[in-house]
Amino acid sequence: MGPALAQVMAMLVLLLSVLSLAAGGKLLVLPVDGSHWLGMREVLDGLRQKGHEIVVIAPEVSLHIKPTEGIVMKTYPVPFTLEELDESFQAFFQDMFEEESFLGRFIKIYRRMKETSAMLMASCKQLLYNKELISYLEESEFDAVLTNPILPCGQIVADRLSLPSVFFLHQMPCGLEYGATQCPNPPSYVPRIFTGLTDHMNFLQRVKNLLFDFTNYLLCDFVFQPYAKLASEVLERDVTVNALLSHASIWLMKLDFVLHYPRPLMPNMIMISGVNCAHKKLTQEFEAIVNASGEHGIIVFSLGSMVSEIPMKKAKVITDALGTVPQTVLWRYTGKVPPNMPKNIKLVKWLPQNDLLAHPKTRAFITHGGSHGIYEGICNAVPMVIMPLFGDQMDNAKRIESRGAGLTLNVLEMTTEDLSAAVQAVINDKKYKENIKRLSDLHLDRPIHPMDLAVHWVEFVMRHKGAPHLRPAAHDLNWIQYHSLDVIAFLIVVVLLSLFISLKCCLFCCRRCCCKKGRTRKPTKSKSH
Amino acid sequence: MGPALAQVMAMLVLLLSVLSLAAGGKLLVLPVDGSHWLGMREVLDGLRQKGHEIVVIAPEVSLHIKPTEGIVMKTYPVPFTLEELDESFQAFFQDMFEEESFLGRFIKIYRRMKETSAMLMASCKQLLYNKELISYLEESEFDAVLTNPILPCGQIVADRLSLPSVFFLHQMPCGLEYGATQCPNPPSYVPRIFTGLTDHMNFLQRVKNLLFDFTNYLLCDFVFQPYAKLASEVLERDVTVNALLSHASIWLMKLDFVLHYPRPLMPNMIMISGVNCAHKKLTQEFEAIVNASGEHGIIVFSLGSMVSEIPMKKAKVITDALGTVPQTVLWRYTGKVPPNMPKNIKLVKWLPQNDLLAHPKTRAFITHGGSHGIYEGICNAVPMVIMPLFGDQMDNAKRIESRGAGLTLNVLEMTTEDLSAAVQAVINDKKYKENIKRLSDLHLDRPIHPMDLAVHWVEFVMRHKGAPHLRPAAHDLNWIQYHSLDVIAFLIVVVLLSLFISLKCCLFCCRRCCCKKGRTRKPTKSKSH
Repeated sequence: MGPALAQVMAMLVLLLSVLSLAAGGKLLVLPVDGSHWLGMREVLDGLRQKGHEIVVIAPEVSLHIKPTEGIVMKTYPVPFTLEELDESFQAFFQDMFEEESFLGRFIKIYRRMKETSAMLMASCKQLLYNKELISYLEESEFDAVLTNPILPCGQIVADRLSLPSVFFLHQMPCGLEYGATQCPNPPSYVPRIFTGLTDHMNFLQRVKNLLFDFTNYLLCDFVFQPYAKLASEVLERDVTVNALLSHASIWLMKLDFVLHYPRPLMPNMIMISGVNCAHKKLTQEFEAIVNASGEHGIIVFSLGSMVSEIPMKKAKVITDALGTVPQTVLWRYTGKVPPNMPKNIKLVKWLPQNDLLAHPKTRAFITHGGSHGIYEGICNAVPMVIMPLFGDQMDNAKRIESRGAGLTLNVLEMTTEDLSAAVQAVINDKKYKENIKRLSDLHLDRPIHPMDLAVHWVEFVMRHKGAPHLRPAAHDLNWIQYHSLDVIAFLIVVVLLSLFISLKCCLFCCRRCCCKKGRTRKPTKSKSH
Repeated sequence: MGPALAQVMAMLVLLLSVLSLAAGGKLLVLPVDGSHWLGMREVLDGLRQKGHEIVVIAPEVSLHIKPTEGIVMKTYPVPFTLEELDESFQAFFQDMFEEESFLGRFIKIYRRMKETSAMLMASCKQLLYNKELISYLEESEFDAVLTNPILPCGQIVADRLSLPSVFFLHQMPCGLEYGATQCPNPPSYVPRIFTGLTDHMNFLQRVKNLLFDFTNYLLCDFVFQPYAKLASEVLERDVTVNALLSHASIWLMKLDFVLHYPRPLMPNMIMISGVNCAHKKLTQEFEAIVNASGEHGIIVFSLGSMVSEIPMKKAKVITDALGTVPQTVLWRYTGKVPPNMPKNIKLVKWLPQNDLLAHPKTRAFITHGGSHGIYEGICNAVPMVIMPLFGDQMDNAKRIESRGAGLTLNVLEMTTEDLSAAVQAVINDKKYKENIKRLSDLHLDRPIHPMDLAVHWVEFVMRHKGAPHLRPAAHDLNWIQYHSLDVIAFLIVVVLLSLFISLKCCLFCCRRCCCKKGRTRKPTKSKSH
């Protein structure tokens, strides 16, 4: 009976292990609040459907991170309230709309950024020094970490737990993603973030682009240095942010070359733009509005998940402009209603943006140019009027405009006429629709859905405990070695030395010849004497 | 009746156009002979199954390109016979095995290469100046060209017909694929072809790697310059080989980072290694041999599609060595049978290499290290003994060895004992099997089958008439602009000029101060006088 029982036990263990394999792995998620979370949530749903256990660690106080069905959520206390957080963000966005001198504006934004950064930093510290939570994480035996590197807190946790990580992001400030992956980033045709340049630059634009690298370093130092300090404390070794981020196994990047300009990539960068493009049927409420719009159709208008109020003066400019078009305008707006509201404008507290954009009656999309919205516009082939507010929105706007798929307006300077003309242009001038349709066709013609791609690579890292075969040896070289400067210097020295020795030899030979001649002449002379 | 008939006609036209769309596009294929064709053939089959019309243009005389079911094949006359072609290749491979001084060997190989190159060039000329064929191609309205750029003849035809092209290749000599796609190729960690270096190099190896770039340029110039001349004649404009190849829309590259070292890539480079890995059931004949091998299993031995004969002396060394192992050896060999053949060696004229490698009884794979075979070995997780003969085979062998998945032997110098020891090591030392299994697991864990990927991208180029959105703006920059040397020089001049002006200003101020002091002193002096 003994050996038989042992055999049964062994089979049970085998069965259990097979079952646990079939049930998938265990993923730790450290998200970043705001629209970053909204983009990541759908991928988590894809992973959950594949049978993986997902644990999200989030601050107790957050704007958008809410418990989601089928996903374990653990929170940790932070030293601020929801009101304080919301106020900080709202004040930041309100500042965007204030007409002020460049310097005044800059100082204000700098101060706000410092405030918000300090809050996020405090939240990160609370997580890393939360002994109870960290020891729970240590004991939980996760397979991998999924995080957004825009705040490097998640990677500090991954390093602390010695877990492989996957990054989910759109773009980093200062091109940090390219530094951290050792990805070549030539400033001659890859426009830097915040420059509003395209990939075809004249000489002065190339000068500007190169100079932006320096200012970017300063900016990044200010924003990210505190995280390097914190990481060094927690990991008990000297760490730079670049080194910290370089530990990621896979970078899931929401970029596509229908929007971005073609550039080199590294093998561990996976392009998953369009991951958030699946749409559902509209609710009855919205379906009714859209159907009532008649032959002219609708315009979808939203300034993103973070900006739902704007100063009354600006709101009046906008409503006056949108009152001139025959389309029904659905505007996500929670501020005070401007006087004399045109009847064609419907204010809503929230709107199913992607589902509305997917509707065939949608004629245009007025957006702030966040990457999430821009890709939804491309997916659904809706021409855009873009009012960029901050961050990479200027660059996104420039890209859409440079491809003839939309128009950009300066939200601070635009008049009622400007907005009215822009909206009418993108609706009535066929070239905008044609261009966005072409981009959309290219964007959607892909061998595999970006959601499947994202899920695959997270699973890959979980299965293989990382992806070391995709890590380039460049990480082991310093700057001089990477650019072969030592080799070039050595070769120059060798060439110069060879030339010098050859020259010396020649001179020596010449001198010997001359000397001989001299000597043969001298005796003659002496003889003649 | 008139309008009704017109309506019916219009509907018929619509129906036909829909049917022709459903039936797929029209692809022109310009293959390269040898193992290059064998790799491409399976992708053509995949495309044919998707309903595309495929026309292959091949020389009348070729070693491997044969009519294939469901594919139209058109041939053109060439100024040599099959015997001449075969003799040229066989002589080339026979030279590999001859023990001679390095210089003697080099001169011989150089002469043979020149002969073979001249034949291939003659074939290309015959195609381009075949008026009848070219006008047939012009009239046929193809959607795209699929070709192997290792001979740029196909791209000259694509340019001549103004068609977008897709390249299908493993690797180009001299890293031409990176130059033509503007893909960064840092010599500090990307080992050059033919160097046998890995991605981790010491200082002297990095010097060697950089120097190889120069010798590569010379080699490429010798091999490819005639094609540039021919292209310039045919296209009636000055063309370099780099510019010619840069016109390709998509590069389907048979590389994977389980074998190659991680490096930057461009967006139009699609990795499709493993595309030729599907295996079929063995025929009864081979199944019987494999089953008869007993518990020791079999060893698969092939030196590639081009080398089926080797000098008797070398064959004797090999049979003596393989007689010492308990496995049954299946060797593709068409030469004279060496005396005292051990019973465990079965000589066959041809073997289903991939199907045999896929058999669980296969213990080892003795190969020349061609990329095709190497990837089949990886797919099926069979440890390898590699005897590289020429081309990139040395590099492939080095890569497999550096990953601990096989051993390399110098085919010229190896003794019976060397081969016997190597084969026994890869079979009996578990680490080889474990390492190749790990590589195989990584290689096969992919989000989409490489065949689907290859078919998708050929179809993409056919549908969208190319892929201009993946073409980097770097193509429009010269070398100085690309590396921002003009911008850096400008900034240095600006900085130096600013320093110079500041210095001058300081000096001027100092002088004025001194002068004033001097003047104020002088009058005092004059007063004192």
